[in-house]
Order: sequence, then structure tokens, then C-alpha cells
Amino acid sequence: MNENDLITSLVRPWKSGPHLLVGPGDDCALVRPPRSGEQLVLKTDALVENVHFTRQAGWPLIGQKAVARVVSDFAAMGATPHHLLITIGLPASVTPRHLASCYRGMRTAARRWKLDLAGGEITRSPLFWISIAATGSVQCGRAVLRSGARAGHGIYVTGRLGGSFASRRHLHFTPRLSEGLWLARHRFPSAMMDLSDGLGADLPRLARASGLSFHIDPSALPCHARCTPSQAVNDGEDYELLFTVPPVREKSLLANWPFRTRLTHIGTMLPRTRRPETGGIDFRGFDHLA
Amino acid sequence: MNENDLITSLVRPWKSGPHLLVGPGDDCALVRPPRSGEQLVLKTDALVENVHFTRQAGWPLIGQKAVARVVSDFAAMGATPHHLLITIGLPASVTPRHLASCYRGMRTAARRWKLDLAGGEITRSPLFWISIAATGSVQCGRAVLRSGARAGHGIYVTGRLGGSFASRRHLHFTPRLSEGLWLARHRFPSAMMDLSDGLGADLPRLARASGLSFHIDPSALPCHARCTPSQAVNDGEDYELLFTVPPVREKSLLANWPFRTRLTHIGTMLPRTRRPETGGIDFRGFDHLA
Repeated sequence: MNENDLITSLVRPWKSGPHLLVGPGDDCALVRPPRSGEQLVLKTDALVENVHFTRQAGWPLIGQKAVARVVSDFAAMGATPHHLLITIGLPASVTPRHLASCYRGMRTAARRWKLDLAGGEITRSPLFWISIAATGSVQCGRAVLRSGARAGHGIYVTGRLGGSFASRRHLHFTPRLSEGLWLARHRFPSAMMDLSDGLGADLPRLARASGLSFHIDPSALPCHARCTPSQAVNDGEDYELLFTVPPVREKSLLANWPFRTRLTHIGTMLPRTRRPETGGIDFRGFDHLA
Repeated sequence: MNENDLITSLVRPWKSGPHLLVGPGDDCALVRPPRSGEQLVLKTDALVENVHFTRQAGWPLIGQKAVARVVSDFAAMGATPHHLLITIGLPASVTPRHLASCYRGMRTAARRWKLDLAGGEITRSPLFWISIAATGSVQCGRAVLRSGARAGHGIYVTGRLGGSFASRRHLHFTPRLSEGLWLARHRFPSAMMDLSDGLGADLPRLARASGLSFHIDPSALPCHARCTPSQAVNDGEDYELLFTVPPVREKSLLANWPFRTRLTHIGTMLPRTRRPETGGIDFRGFDHLA
């Protein structure tokens, strides 16, 4: 199968929404811009074989995970994703059938989260990798950054943490898009991000972006079954939301939270001059380049 | 150097323009959307080590080429690129110094074409690769697609063709952004694309998108010095513009072309029922997956 035929066979099954004016197949894609009063939101995310996944995961789940990770980043800004550009590095060992199976997984996730395929590329590569770029939108002034926390704000997480690899949950997780959009719409979070590298790496990032330190109560951590607090902090790939809330808004948040998803208060932001208080748990997280 | 420090050191030297609201460092980037009356233009493009380049090219030129290729795709739509998201697959054999040198090359190209760095990612990978996503804009109705050619339209190319690898021109080319924007603004082209895989692969794509065939006059091909017409057709990586013009507009185009860049009439689009006429030259082009 040559390049043109392969791409055509992969792209044909995707249905496209009304915002996609020119989809895959031209030099660039052309889409309707965000509505007036909205800002454009951009994200790129990559998965590399034998670094982020192995083929044992199964091709459809690899594809689903690639898309779900990007959706999780939009959730973390309180933004809505709209369009995907999928770039694939394709070794000879991945057959057109494998690739079709991976695309089927991406399509499943895209349908669920209402994402159009706007474009992308397939390129020869000694190694299999997926790089996904996504565009979306958020109302002006509604995006939740990492930098907005203040000392005294409560620290919250959705869901449970830890054991994501051991349980294969990292292939099956549900990005918290509804929760992130609801939180942003009601302006509860002062800062927010998603937990991709684990609380132990991600909370220090949020604290650094906000110029703060933090106190965590290990006994409050919502650990998955058979996980210690240390695993909940350092395993990574939870894809839960981590956010901070001003004290005056905490009661209202807890009273109005409309989701089944668990919501847990795990600590408090501290002034920069204080050392992080973690109750003895090592916050080492996960360094992609380590 | 850990991931946070490495990214900070690479991103800090980039100056950002007024359209970038939240740049690298948060979950997503936030940018001003296109102005009213404009459409959003999206493109992604990847380079893989030992497939698209070798380290002998030098890190700054590798970076420059990665950005210039994307700019060339915007030129081919008559669109203006604005924001870059740069994703890197980073093996241990590429040192922070190599990477900084590559980013310097990308920055040089970005400054020249007035592009902001909106975000991206650096991820561990056994192999070095660069995947660039770019967003831009075009006035509604002005984008030039591959599908607009009609039988009888003249076929034109900018510049000269062939010998791009042998001459290292593929590392040094100037994307035809000014030319593409001018052509689109004056509505000369009925169809347009850039010549990345060579006329022999790209003209058949334009013809297929327009539902047509084509006649090429080999003696008219603007070959680079020491290149045969066959090399001009099949070497690839010219990054010149290929476009078609309705006969009633050809005289005006030639009379008003304001650039030093060579402009050459090389043939005519034919009805789909005709076989391609190439004067005996094999139009085999370049298949990325071959």
C-alpha cells in the first residue's frame, strides 16, 4: 500500500463536524475559528513505543490513550478540545492492519469527546511514535492556569491516585473533561492542572508556577485499593485533576459538586518561604528525561 | 539537567508576540484567535533522524529546516502562520547542548517568519525526531486548495527544481511565503501546493484532488544547474510552489509578478479522461513509506 492509499484508508472512516472546512489531504487544514469572546487553546502530546507503552497494550488502547491524554490537558485548563492533528512515526514492523487498529482506538476516543480529525502525517521512522496536536477554545478569562493559587487555598484532587501502571488503568482512564469544564464555568479553581506525572512531580510544578509551597495530609490522600500513600504520590499517570480553591469558595464547591467522581481535599497552599510539608512522603514524581 | 530545567533553558530565549496569551509551561497554550472574517489554518510536520536528515547537516540547520517546511505548507495555502508547538523525541545521544543548538536554528527561522513558540513537549525516545504543529490564519474564501484546478488552466512553478539533496539546498531553502500570500491575495491560482516530494509525486496529487490529468513540457522545466529534467521532476524537497492559473488570468500574472523568484509556465491541466503527458519523463516522485 502506498502513502496516499494508506492515509486515505485511515482517514475515510472519520466523520467530520461542521467546524472542519478542509480536512486531511490538502497542504493545511482549515477550520472555523473560535467564536467571538473565545480564545484559542493549543496542545501537543506524544507517545513513544517502549517509553510510554508497549504493543502488549493492544493497538486500540494505545490509540485511545493518545487521544485521552490530550483531552485531559484541555480539561485541566477548563477548555473544550475541537480538532486533532495526528502525526505517526511508522516502522516497517507496524503493518497497515496494526495502524488501522490504532486509528480505530483514536476514533473511538475522538467520537466520545466530539473531536474532528483535521489532519496530520504518517512518516517513515525506525521507531513507532504518535504525536497529537489539538486545538480547542475557552471563553475569554475562563481558562484556569497553574499560576493562580494563593497561600491558604485548599488543594483538591478528583478520583483516586496510584497504581495506574500495575492496574493498566493508564490505558483505560476517563479524562475529567466534564469536571474541568464545570469547575472553570463556576470559577471554583484558582489554579488547576492534570496529574500526568503524579502528584509528587505535578504539585511542585503548580506550586512553582504560583510562587508558593504546600502542605499535604498523607492520611487524606484518596489512594486506589492496594496502594500506599507513597505510590499514590509517585506512581504517575493518574490523569486526575489537581486544583486549588480559595477558602471562601470551598464550602460551596463541596455542596454543589454534581459528579460521582470523588472529590478530596488533600492539603493547603503555603507561602513560598515555608518548606513543603508532605508528612514524610518523598515527592519525587516522575521525570520524563530521567 | 532535569526536564523542567531543560525546557526552561530552551524556551527562555524565545520572544513572544502580542497574540500569545499563555505560552509554554501550562497544560495548554492560549492564543488570540484569528480576527473576524478569518479562518484558522492548522498543519503538522515531522522530521526523523536518518530518514529526513542526518546529524552531519548540523543542529541549527536541522532546526531551521523543520520550521521552514511548515512555513512552506502555509505558503501553499496562501495562509499566514502564527504559532508553533514543537515536540521533540530525545535520545540520550543528543546532549542538552545539541538540543539548544537545534532550538537556536528553529528560533532563527521563527524570527524570520514572525512565529511565536506557543508550546510543545520533550519526551524520551530511543530516536531523535521533531514534530512541529503550527496554527495560522487566512481570510475567509482566500485559501487556495489543491482541488480548484480546471482543464485548460496553466501549470506554473516558482524557482528551479532538482538536486536539492546533492546541493544541500534542502537545508537552506527559503519557503515561498511572500509569493504564496501575494498569489492568494490577487486570486491568481485556482489550485496550489508546495513541492515537497517532487513534481513527479506532487503534480499527480494536485491533479487527483482536482479530478484532472496534465500535460507537462519537459523542455520548459526550470532545472537547477547540472540537473536533468528527470531529476527536476523526481529528486524532491524543492519547496517551490506549484499552482494552476485560469487562461484569462495568465497574462496579468506574468505582467504583475513582483518577485525576483523565477516563475515558469510548465504545462496545462487536461481533462481526467486524458492520460498524463510528460514527454517521456517518469513521474515517480517520492513515497514516504516506500
